[in-house]
Amino acid sequence: MPERITLYTAKICPYAQRAELALEEAKAKYTKYQIDLQNKPEWYAPKVNPASKVPAIAYGGPAVQPDQPSSESVKLAESLVLVEFVADLFPDSPLLPADPVKRAQARFFIEVVSSKLVSSWNNALRTGTPEAVQAFLGGVEAVQSLLPAQGYAVGEFSIADISVAPFLARAYVALENDIGAYEQGEGAKILEALQQPRFARFQTYWAELQARPSFQATFDKEYVTEAFKKRFSSLRVKQ
Amino acid sequence: MPERITLYTAKICPYAQRAELALEEAKAKYTKYQIDLQNKPEWYAPKVNPASKVPAIAYGGPAVQPDQPSSESVKLAESLVLVEFVADLFPDSPLLPADPVKRAQARFFIEVVSSKLVSSWNNALRTGTPEAVQAFLGGVEAVQSLLPAQGYAVGEFSIADISVAPFLARAYVALENDIGAYEQGEGAKILEALQQPRFARFQTYWAELQARPSFQATFDKEYVTEAFKKRFSSLRVKQ
Ligand SMILES: [Ca+2]
Repeated sequence: MPERITLYTAKICPYAQRAELALEEAKAKYTKYQIDLQNKPEWYAPKVNPASKVPAIAYGGPAVQPDQPSSESVKLAESLVLVEFVADLFPDSPLLPADPVKRAQARFFIEVVSSKLVSSWNNALRTGTPEAVQAFLGGVEAVQSLLPAQGYAVGEFSIADISVAPFLARAYVALENDIGAYEQGEGAKILEALQQPRFARFQTYWAELQARPSFQATFDKEYVTEAFKKRFSSLRVKQ
Repeated sequence: MPERITLYTAKICPYAQRAELALEEAKAKYTKYQIDLQNKPEWYAPKVNPASKVPAIAYGGPAVQPDQPSSESVKLAESLVLVEFVADLFPDSPLLPADPVKRAQARFFIEVVSSKLVSSWNNALRTGTPEAVQAFLGGVEAVQSLLPAQGYAVGEFSIADISVAPFLARAYVALENDIGAYEQGEGAKILEALQQPRFARFQTYWAELQARPSFQATFDKEYVTEAFKKRFSSLRVKQ
Protein backbone atom coordinates (compact mmCIF):
# COMPACT_ATOMS: atom_id res chain seq x y z
CA MET A 1 0.00 0.00 0.00
CA PRO A 2 1.70 3.23 -1.17
CA GLU A 3 2.28 5.98 1.34
CA ARG A 4 1.26 9.62 1.08
CA ILE A 5 2.23 11.27 -2.25
CA THR A 6 2.59 15.01 -2.84
CA LEU A 7 3.45 16.06 -6.38
CA TYR A 8 5.07 19.42 -6.99
CA THR A 9 4.21 20.40 -10.52
CA ALA A 10 3.59 23.27 -12.96
CA LYS A 11 1.02 23.32 -15.75
CA ILE A 12 3.46 24.78 -18.27
CA CYS A 13 6.13 22.10 -17.78
CA PRO A 14 6.15 19.00 -20.00
CA TYR A 15 8.38 17.08 -17.58
CA ALA A 16 5.92 17.72 -14.78
CA GLN A 17 3.02 16.53 -16.90
CA ARG A 18 4.79 13.20 -17.30
CA ALA A 19 4.59 12.64 -13.55
CA GLU A 20 0.94 13.74 -13.48
CA LEU A 21 0.09 11.34 -16.31
CA ALA A 22 1.72 8.46 -14.46
CA LEU A 23 -0.17 9.20 -11.25
CA GLU A 24 -3.48 9.55 -13.13
CA GLU A 25 -2.97 6.31 -15.06
CA ALA A 26 -2.15 4.53 -11.80
CA LYS A 27 -5.30 6.00 -10.23
CA ALA A 28 -3.08 7.10 -7.37
CA LYS A 29 -4.37 9.18 -4.50
CA TYR A 30 -2.11 12.24 -4.38
CA THR A 31 -1.93 15.91 -3.57
CA LYS A 32 -0.96 18.22 -6.39
CA TYR A 33 0.80 21.49 -5.63
CA GLN A 34 1.51 24.09 -8.33
CA ILE A 35 4.92 25.76 -8.29
CA ASP A 36 5.17 29.12 -10.03
CA LEU A 37 8.36 28.55 -12.00
CA GLN A 38 8.88 32.28 -12.59
CA ASN A 39 8.60 32.98 -8.90
CA LYS A 40 9.47 29.88 -6.92
CA PRO A 41 8.65 29.79 -3.22
CA GLU A 42 11.72 30.15 -1.03
CA TRP A 43 11.19 26.81 0.70
CA TYR A 44 11.07 24.80 -2.53
CA ALA A 45 14.77 24.25 -3.26
CA PRO A 46 15.95 23.71 0.34
CA LYS A 47 13.00 21.54 1.39
CA VAL A 48 11.91 19.68 -1.75
CA ASN A 49 14.25 19.77 -4.75
CA PRO A 50 17.76 21.25 -4.54
CA ALA A 51 17.76 21.49 -8.35
CA SER A 52 14.72 23.75 -7.95
CA LYS A 53 12.88 22.08 -10.82
CA VAL A 54 9.52 20.37 -11.21
CA PRO A 55 8.34 17.67 -11.03
CA ALA A 56 9.25 16.42 -7.57
CA ILE A 57 7.48 14.06 -5.22
CA ALA A 58 7.41 14.07 -1.43
CA TYR A 59 6.69 10.49 -0.43
CA GLY A 60 5.60 9.28 3.00
CA GLY A 61 5.96 11.18 6.24
CA PRO A 62 3.20 12.84 8.27
CA ALA A 63 0.19 14.73 6.90
CA VAL A 64 1.42 18.26 6.23
CA GLN A 65 0.53 21.20 4.03
CA PRO A 66 2.41 20.91 0.72
CA ASP A 67 3.98 24.31 1.33
CA GLN A 68 5.33 23.09 4.67
CA PRO A 69 7.07 19.89 3.58
CA SER A 70 8.10 17.50 6.33
CA SER A 71 11.72 16.46 6.69
CA GLU A 72 10.36 12.95 7.27
CA SER A 73 9.13 12.43 3.71
CA VAL A 74 11.48 11.19 0.99
CA LYS A 75 11.99 13.71 -1.79
CA LEU A 76 12.37 12.38 -5.33
CA ALA A 77 12.97 14.19 -8.62
CA GLU A 78 13.53 13.77 -12.39
CA SER A 79 10.48 13.07 -14.50
CA LEU A 80 11.46 9.66 -15.85
CA VAL A 81 12.59 8.52 -12.41
CA LEU A 82 9.19 9.53 -11.03
CA VAL A 83 7.31 7.76 -13.81
CA GLU A 84 9.19 4.52 -13.06
CA PHE A 85 8.63 5.12 -9.35
CA VAL A 86 4.86 5.32 -9.86
CA ALA A 87 5.03 2.16 -11.98
CA ASP A 88 6.88 0.42 -9.12
CA LEU A 89 4.39 1.67 -6.52
CA PHE A 90 1.43 0.53 -8.61
CA PRO A 91 2.52 -2.69 -10.32
CA ASP A 92 -1.04 -3.42 -11.46
CA SER A 93 -1.35 -0.10 -13.32
CA PRO A 94 -1.05 0.00 -17.11
CA LEU A 95 2.24 1.92 -16.87
CA LEU A 96 4.57 -0.95 -17.76
CA PRO A 97 3.79 -4.15 -19.66
CA ALA A 98 4.56 -7.39 -17.85
CA ASP A 99 6.74 -8.77 -20.67
CA PRO A 100 10.41 -7.82 -20.20
CA VAL A 101 10.87 -7.39 -23.96
CA LYS A 102 7.98 -4.94 -24.19
CA ARG A 103 9.27 -3.10 -21.14
CA ALA A 104 12.64 -2.76 -22.86
CA GLN A 105 10.95 -1.53 -26.02
CA ALA A 106 9.03 1.07 -23.99
CA ARG A 107 12.27 2.29 -22.42
CA PHE A 108 14.01 2.36 -25.80
CA PHE A 109 11.15 4.48 -27.15
CA ILE A 110 11.68 6.90 -24.25
CA GLU A 111 15.38 7.09 -25.08
CA VAL A 112 14.55 8.07 -28.67
CA VAL A 113 12.04 10.65 -27.45
CA SER A 114 14.74 12.18 -25.21
CA SER A 115 17.58 12.09 -27.70
CA LYS A 116 15.74 12.90 -30.92
CA LEU A 117 12.48 14.72 -30.18
CA VAL A 118 12.79 16.72 -26.95
CA SER A 119 16.13 18.28 -27.82
CA SER A 120 15.28 18.99 -31.46
CA TRP A 121 11.98 20.62 -30.48
CA ASN A 122 13.72 22.86 -27.95
CA ASN A 123 16.19 23.87 -30.63
CA ALA A 124 13.49 24.58 -33.19
CA LEU A 125 11.59 26.70 -30.67
CA ARG A 126 14.58 28.64 -29.39
CA THR A 127 16.78 29.04 -32.47
CA GLY A 128 14.20 28.71 -35.23
CA THR A 129 16.80 27.95 -37.90
CA PRO A 130 15.67 25.92 -40.92
CA GLU A 131 18.11 23.19 -39.86
CA ALA A 132 16.57 23.06 -36.38
CA VAL A 133 13.06 22.86 -37.85
CA GLN A 134 14.12 20.01 -40.16
CA ALA A 135 15.76 18.22 -37.23
CA PHE A 136 12.48 18.49 -35.31
CA LEU A 137 10.57 16.93 -38.21
CA GLY A 138 13.26 14.25 -38.31
CA GLY A 139 12.69 13.64 -34.59
CA VAL A 140 8.97 13.18 -35.15
CA GLU A 141 9.81 10.74 -37.93
CA ALA A 142 12.20 8.82 -35.67
CA VAL A 143 9.48 8.44 -33.06
CA GLN A 144 6.94 7.47 -35.72
CA SER A 145 9.28 4.79 -37.08
CA LEU A 146 9.08 2.94 -33.75
CA LEU A 147 5.27 2.80 -33.68
CA PRO A 148 3.55 -0.50 -34.36
CA ALA A 149 0.92 -0.62 -37.14
CA GLN A 150 -1.70 0.41 -34.63
CA GLY A 151 -2.12 1.29 -30.97
CA TYR A 152 0.27 2.97 -28.63
CA ALA A 153 4.08 2.95 -28.66
CA VAL A 154 4.40 -0.67 -27.57
CA GLY A 155 0.79 -1.72 -28.26
CA GLU A 156 -0.98 -1.06 -24.99
CA PHE A 157 -0.62 2.35 -23.34
CA SER A 158 2.60 2.66 -21.27
CA ILE A 159 5.25 4.99 -19.88
CA ALA A 160 6.55 5.29 -23.46
CA ASP A 161 3.46 7.28 -24.41
CA ILE A 162 3.71 9.31 -21.22
CA SER A 163 7.23 10.36 -22.16
CA VAL A 164 6.22 11.95 -25.46
CA ALA A 165 2.68 13.33 -25.12
CA PRO A 166 3.53 16.42 -23.00
CA PHE A 167 6.19 17.56 -25.48
CA LEU A 168 3.96 17.12 -28.51
CA ALA A 169 1.18 18.99 -26.73
CA ARG A 170 3.42 22.00 -26.11
CA ALA A 171 4.94 21.89 -29.59
CA TYR A 172 1.43 22.10 -31.06
CA VAL A 173 0.52 25.02 -28.79
CA ALA A 174 3.62 26.88 -29.95
CA LEU A 175 3.14 26.07 -33.63
CA GLU A 176 -0.59 26.86 -33.67
CA ASN A 177 0.16 30.24 -32.16
CA ASP A 178 3.26 30.84 -34.25
CA ILE A 179 5.32 31.10 -31.06
CA GLY A 180 9.05 30.48 -31.49
CA ALA A 181 12.28 31.96 -32.79
CA TYR A 182 11.46 30.83 -36.34
CA GLU A 183 10.20 33.35 -38.90
CA GLN A 184 6.66 34.69 -38.73
CA GLY A 185 4.25 32.26 -40.41
CA GLU A 186 6.64 29.34 -40.05
CA GLY A 187 4.49 27.73 -37.32
CA ALA A 188 1.69 27.09 -39.83
CA LYS A 189 4.17 25.69 -42.35
CA ILE A 190 5.53 23.18 -39.84
CA LEU A 191 1.98 22.13 -38.94
CA GLU A 192 1.30 21.66 -42.64
CA ALA A 193 4.40 19.53 -43.01
CA LEU A 194 3.16 17.36 -40.14
CA GLN A 195 -0.11 16.81 -42.07
CA GLN A 196 1.69 15.28 -45.05
CA PRO A 197 1.15 11.58 -45.80
CA ARG A 198 4.66 10.85 -44.54
CA PHE A 199 3.36 11.61 -41.03
CA ALA A 200 0.04 9.73 -41.31
CA ARG A 201 0.92 7.11 -38.69
CA PHE A 202 2.18 9.80 -36.35
CA GLN A 203 -1.08 11.75 -36.69
CA THR A 204 -3.23 8.76 -35.72
CA TYR A 205 -0.98 8.18 -32.74
CA TRP A 206 -1.09 11.82 -31.67
CA ALA A 207 -4.89 11.85 -31.92
CA GLU A 208 -5.06 8.79 -29.67
CA LEU A 209 -2.70 10.34 -27.15
CA GLN A 210 -4.89 13.44 -26.92
CA ALA A 211 -8.05 11.37 -26.51
CA ARG A 212 -6.62 9.56 -23.48
CA PRO A 213 -8.54 10.63 -20.32
CA SER A 214 -5.29 10.99 -18.34
CA PHE A 215 -4.06 13.43 -20.96
CA GLN A 216 -7.21 15.49 -20.82
CA ALA A 217 -7.08 15.55 -17.02
CA THR A 218 -3.49 16.84 -16.99
CA PHE A 219 -3.24 19.24 -19.94
CA ASP A 220 -4.77 22.71 -19.60
CA LYS A 221 -4.38 23.94 -23.17
CA GLU A 222 -5.80 27.39 -22.49
CA TYR A 223 -3.44 27.94 -19.59
CA VAL A 224 -0.40 26.67 -21.48
CA THR A 225 -1.27 28.84 -24.49
CA GLU A 226 -1.44 32.00 -22.37
CA ALA A 227 1.73 31.06 -20.51
CA PHE A 228 3.60 30.36 -23.76
CA LYS A 229 2.50 33.71 -25.18
CA LYS A 230 3.93 35.50 -22.17
CA ARG A 231 7.05 33.44 -21.81
CA PHE A 232 8.17 32.86 -25.39
CA SER A 233 6.82 35.83 -27.36
CA SER A 234 10.20 37.53 -27.14
CA LEU A 235 11.97 34.61 -28.88
CA ARG A 236 11.39 35.91 -32.40
CA VAL A 237 12.26 39.49 -31.52
CA LYS A 238 15.61 38.39 -30.16
CA GLN A 239 16.70 36.89 -33.47
CA MET B 1 12.94 -18.74 -17.52
CA PRO B 2 14.84 -16.29 -19.75
CA GLU B 3 15.42 -17.23 -23.37
CA ARG B 4 18.70 -17.28 -25.26
CA ILE B 5 20.81 -14.12 -24.83
CA THR B 6 23.57 -12.95 -27.18
CA LEU B 7 25.39 -9.79 -26.17
CA TYR B 8 27.20 -7.75 -28.80
CA THR B 9 29.90 -5.83 -27.01
CA ALA B 10 33.35 -4.24 -27.25
CA LYS B 11 35.99 -4.18 -24.52
CA ILE B 12 36.81 -0.53 -25.08
CA CYS B 13 33.22 0.71 -24.71
CA PRO B 14 31.93 1.82 -21.29
CA TYR B 15 28.31 1.52 -22.39
CA ALA B 16 28.88 -2.07 -23.42
CA GLN B 17 30.53 -2.87 -20.09
CA ARG B 18 27.32 -1.75 -18.35
CA ALA B 19 25.41 -4.54 -20.11
CA GLU B 20 28.15 -7.06 -19.30
CA LEU B 21 28.12 -6.07 -15.64
CA ALA B 22 24.35 -6.53 -15.47
CA LEU B 23 24.53 -9.99 -17.04
CA GLU B 24 27.39 -11.04 -14.75
CA GLU B 25 25.60 -9.79 -11.62
CA ALA B 26 22.47 -11.66 -12.70
CA LYS B 27 24.55 -14.81 -13.27
CA ALA B 28 22.89 -15.00 -16.66
CA LYS B 29 23.85 -17.60 -19.20
CA TYR B 30 24.77 -15.67 -22.34
CA THR B 31 26.99 -15.59 -25.39
CA LYS B 32 29.36 -12.67 -25.73
CA TYR B 33 30.43 -11.48 -29.16
CA GLN B 34 33.09 -8.79 -29.65
CA ILE B 35 32.41 -6.14 -32.27
CA ASP B 36 35.46 -4.32 -33.64
CA LEU B 37 34.17 -0.75 -33.48
CA GLN B 38 36.83 0.52 -35.89
CA ASN B 39 35.87 -2.11 -38.43
CA LYS B 40 32.31 -3.24 -37.86
CA PRO B 41 31.09 -6.36 -39.63
CA GLU B 42 28.72 -5.60 -42.49
CA TRP B 43 25.87 -7.61 -41.02
CA TYR B 44 25.88 -5.76 -37.69
CA ALA B 45 23.80 -2.67 -38.49
CA PRO B 46 21.22 -4.34 -40.75
CA LYS B 47 20.80 -7.46 -38.62
CA VAL B 48 21.42 -6.36 -35.04
CA ASN B 49 21.50 -2.64 -34.32
CA PRO B 50 20.56 -0.04 -36.99
CA ALA B 51 22.39 2.58 -34.89
CA SER B 52 25.49 0.41 -35.37
CA LYS B 53 26.54 0.83 -31.72
CA VAL B 54 27.29 -1.55 -28.89
CA PRO B 55 25.92 -2.88 -26.63
CA ALA B 56 23.03 -4.75 -28.23
CA ILE B 57 21.26 -7.94 -27.24
CA ALA B 58 19.67 -10.56 -29.46
CA TYR B 59 17.04 -12.24 -27.30
CA GLY B 60 15.27 -15.51 -28.02
CA GLY B 61 15.03 -17.23 -31.40
CA PRO B 62 16.86 -20.35 -32.54
CA ALA B 63 20.45 -21.35 -31.69
CA VAL B 64 22.62 -19.54 -34.23
CA GLN B 65 26.17 -18.30 -34.56
CA PRO B 66 26.38 -14.72 -33.22
CA ASP B 67 27.71 -13.53 -36.56
CA GLN B 68 24.66 -15.02 -38.29
CA PRO B 69 21.88 -13.46 -36.23
CA SER B 70 18.41 -14.87 -36.67
CA SER B 71 15.54 -12.65 -37.74
CA GLU B 72 13.51 -14.49 -35.11
CA SER B 73 15.33 -13.04 -32.12
CA VAL B 74 14.33 -9.66 -30.69
CA LYS B 75 17.08 -7.06 -30.97
CA LEU B 76 17.45 -4.56 -28.14
CA ALA B 77 19.86 -1.65 -27.69
CA GLU B 78 20.87 1.26 -25.42
CA SER B 79 22.94 0.40 -22.37
CA LEU B 80 20.53 1.59 -19.69
CA VAL B 81 17.61 -0.10 -21.42
CA LEU B 82 19.59 -3.35 -21.46
CA VAL B 83 20.54 -3.05 -17.81
CA GLU B 84 16.85 -2.63 -16.85
CA PHE B 85 15.99 -5.49 -19.21
CA VAL B 86 18.40 -7.83 -17.43
CA ALA B 87 16.94 -6.68 -14.09
CA ASP B 88 13.46 -7.53 -15.40
CA LEU B 89 14.58 -10.94 -16.71
CA PHE B 90 16.27 -11.79 -13.41
CA PRO B 91 14.09 -10.25 -10.70
CA ASP B 92 15.98 -12.13 -7.98
CA SER B 93 19.34 -10.66 -8.99
CA PRO B 94 20.89 -7.85 -6.94
CA LEU B 95 20.40 -5.41 -9.83
CA LEU B 96 17.45 -3.49 -8.39
CA PRO B 97 16.41 -3.19 -4.73
CA ALA B 98 12.86 -4.30 -3.91
CA ASP B 99 11.92 -1.01 -2.24
CA PRO B 100 10.39 1.46 -4.78
CA VAL B 101 12.08 4.40 -3.03
CA LYS B 102 15.51 2.81 -3.32
CA ARG B 103 14.82 1.91 -6.94
CA ALA B 104 13.99 5.56 -7.60
CA GLN B 105 17.16 6.65 -5.84
CA ALA B 106 19.18 4.23 -7.98
CA ARG B 107 17.63 5.66 -11.14
CA PHE B 108 18.20 9.22 -9.94
CA PHE B 109 21.87 8.36 -9.35
CA ILE B 110 22.06 7.09 -12.94
CA GLU B 111 20.55 10.34 -14.18
CA VAL B 112 23.26 12.32 -12.36
CA VAL B 113 25.95 10.03 -13.76
CA SER B 114 24.62 10.65 -17.29
CA SER B 115 24.10 14.38 -16.99
CA LYS B 116 27.07 15.35 -14.84
CA LEU B 117 29.81 12.74 -15.11
CA VAL B 118 29.71 11.03 -18.51
CA SER B 119 29.37 14.25 -20.50
CA SER B 120 31.94 16.20 -18.47
CA TRP B 121 34.46 13.38 -18.74
CA ASN B 122 34.04 13.20 -22.51
CA ASN B 123 34.58 16.95 -22.68
CA ALA B 124 37.66 16.84 -20.48
CA LEU B 125 39.15 14.04 -22.59
CA ARG B 126 38.36 15.58 -25.95
CA THR B 127 38.77 19.32 -25.38
CA GLY B 128 41.13 19.29 -22.39
CA THR B 129 40.34 22.90 -21.43
CA PRO B 130 40.81 23.85 -17.75
CA GLU B 131 37.04 24.52 -17.58
CA ALA B 132 36.27 21.03 -18.88
CA VAL B 133 38.68 19.48 -16.37
CA GLN B 134 37.04 21.43 -13.52
CA ALA B 135 33.61 20.37 -14.75
CA PHE B 136 34.74 16.74 -14.64
CA LEU B 137 35.93 17.13 -11.04
CA GLY B 138 32.56 18.79 -10.32
CA GLY B 139 30.84 15.78 -11.86
CA VAL B 140 32.77 13.40 -9.61
CA GLU B 141 31.75 15.58 -6.66
CA ALA B 142 28.09 15.50 -7.74
CA VAL B 143 28.18 11.70 -7.83
CA GLN B 144 30.00 11.56 -4.50
CA SER B 145 27.38 13.82 -2.89
CA LEU B 146 24.73 11.16 -3.52
CA LEU B 147 26.66 8.36 -1.82
CA PRO B 148 25.51 7.13 1.58
CA ALA B 149 28.04 7.13 4.45
CA GLN B 150 29.13 3.67 3.39
CA GLY B 151 28.38 1.00 0.84
CA TYR B 152 27.30 1.35 -2.75
CA ALA B 153 25.24 4.10 -4.37
CA VAL B 154 21.99 3.10 -2.69
CA GLY B 155 23.49 0.84 0.00
CA GLU B 156 23.51 -2.57 -1.62
CA PHE B 157 25.06 -2.99 -5.08
CA SER B 158 22.63 -2.04 -7.89
CA ILE B 159 22.27 -0.76 -11.44
CA ALA B 160 23.34 2.65 -10.10
CA ASP B 161 26.87 1.33 -9.55
CA ILE B 162 26.81 -0.39 -12.91
CA SER B 163 26.07 2.92 -14.60
CA VAL B 164 29.17 4.66 -13.31
CA ALA B 165 31.95 2.06 -12.92
CA PRO B 166 32.80 1.63 -16.63
CA PHE B 167 33.25 5.39 -17.10
CA LEU B 168 35.44 5.79 -14.05
CA ALA B 169 37.54 2.84 -15.17
CA ARG B 170 38.21 4.42 -18.53
CA ALA B 171 38.81 7.87 -17.08
CA TYR B 172 41.50 6.37 -14.82
CA VAL B 173 43.12 4.58 -17.75
CA ALA B 174 43.28 7.83 -19.68
CA LEU B 175 44.56 9.89 -16.75
CA GLU B 176 47.16 7.33 -15.63
CA ASN B 177 48.54 7.29 -19.17
CA ASP B 178 48.18 11.04 -19.69
CA ILE B 179 45.88 10.39 -22.64
CA GLY B 180 43.60 13.27 -23.59
CA ALA B 181 43.48 16.68 -25.21
CA TYR B 182 44.62 18.35 -22.00
CA GLU B 183 48.23 19.55 -21.64
CA GLN B 184 51.04 17.06 -21.13
CA GLY B 185 51.33 16.13 -17.44
CA GLU B 186 47.77 17.23 -16.69
CA GLY B 187 46.60 13.61 -16.27
CA ALA B 188 48.75 13.22 -13.16
CA LYS B 189 47.48 16.52 -11.77
CA ILE B 190 43.85 15.46 -12.15
CA LEU B 191 44.64 12.16 -10.42
CA GLU B 192 46.27 14.12 -7.61
CA ALA B 193 43.20 16.33 -7.30
CA LEU B 194 41.08 13.19 -6.97
CA GLN B 195 43.29 12.08 -4.06
CA GLN B 196 42.50 15.20 -2.02
CA PRO B 197 40.45 14.82 1.18
CA ARG B 198 37.46 16.38 -0.59
CA PHE B 199 37.21 13.16 -2.63
CA ALA B 200 37.78 10.72 0.25
CA ARG B 201 34.29 9.20 0.11
CA PHE B 202 34.53 8.87 -3.66
CA GLN B 203 37.86 7.03 -3.36
CA THR B 204 36.44 4.43 -0.97
CA TYR B 205 33.52 3.93 -3.32
CA TRP B 206 35.74 3.61 -6.38
CA ALA B 207 37.93 1.05 -4.59
CA GLU B 208 34.83 -1.00 -3.77
CA LEU B 209 33.59 -0.83 -7.36
CA GLN B 210 36.92 -2.14 -8.62
CA ALA B 211 36.94 -4.98 -6.09
CA ARG B 212 33.56 -6.26 -7.28
CA PRO B 213 34.00 -9.64 -9.04
CA SER B 214 31.65 -8.62 -11.87
CA PHE B 215 33.87 -5.61 -12.53
CA GLN B 216 37.00 -7.71 -12.64
CA ALA B 217 35.33 -10.18 -14.98
CA THR B 218 34.31 -7.46 -17.44
CA PHE B 219 37.18 -4.95 -17.44
CA ASP B 220 40.34 -5.80 -19.33
CA LYS B 221 42.57 -2.94 -18.23
CA GLU B 222 45.54 -3.95 -20.36
CA TYR B 223 43.39 -4.16 -23.47
CA VAL B 224 41.65 -0.85 -22.80
CA THR B 225 44.99 0.85 -22.12
CA GLU B 226 46.44 -0.28 -25.46
CA ALA B 227 43.23 0.60 -27.29
CA PHE B 228 43.12 4.06 -25.69
CA LYS B 229 46.74 4.70 -26.65
CA LYS B 230 45.95 3.91 -30.26
CA ARG B 231 42.62 5.63 -30.45
CA PHE B 232 43.14 8.80 -28.43
CA SER B 233 46.85 9.56 -28.71
CA SER B 234 46.12 12.08 -31.45
CA LEU B 235 43.85 14.15 -29.21
CA ARG B 236 46.61 16.30 -27.75
CA VAL B 237 48.33 16.80 -31.09
CA LYS B 238 45.13 18.14 -32.60
CA GLN B 239 44.89 21.00 -30.10
CA1 LIG C 1 18.86 10.16 -20.52
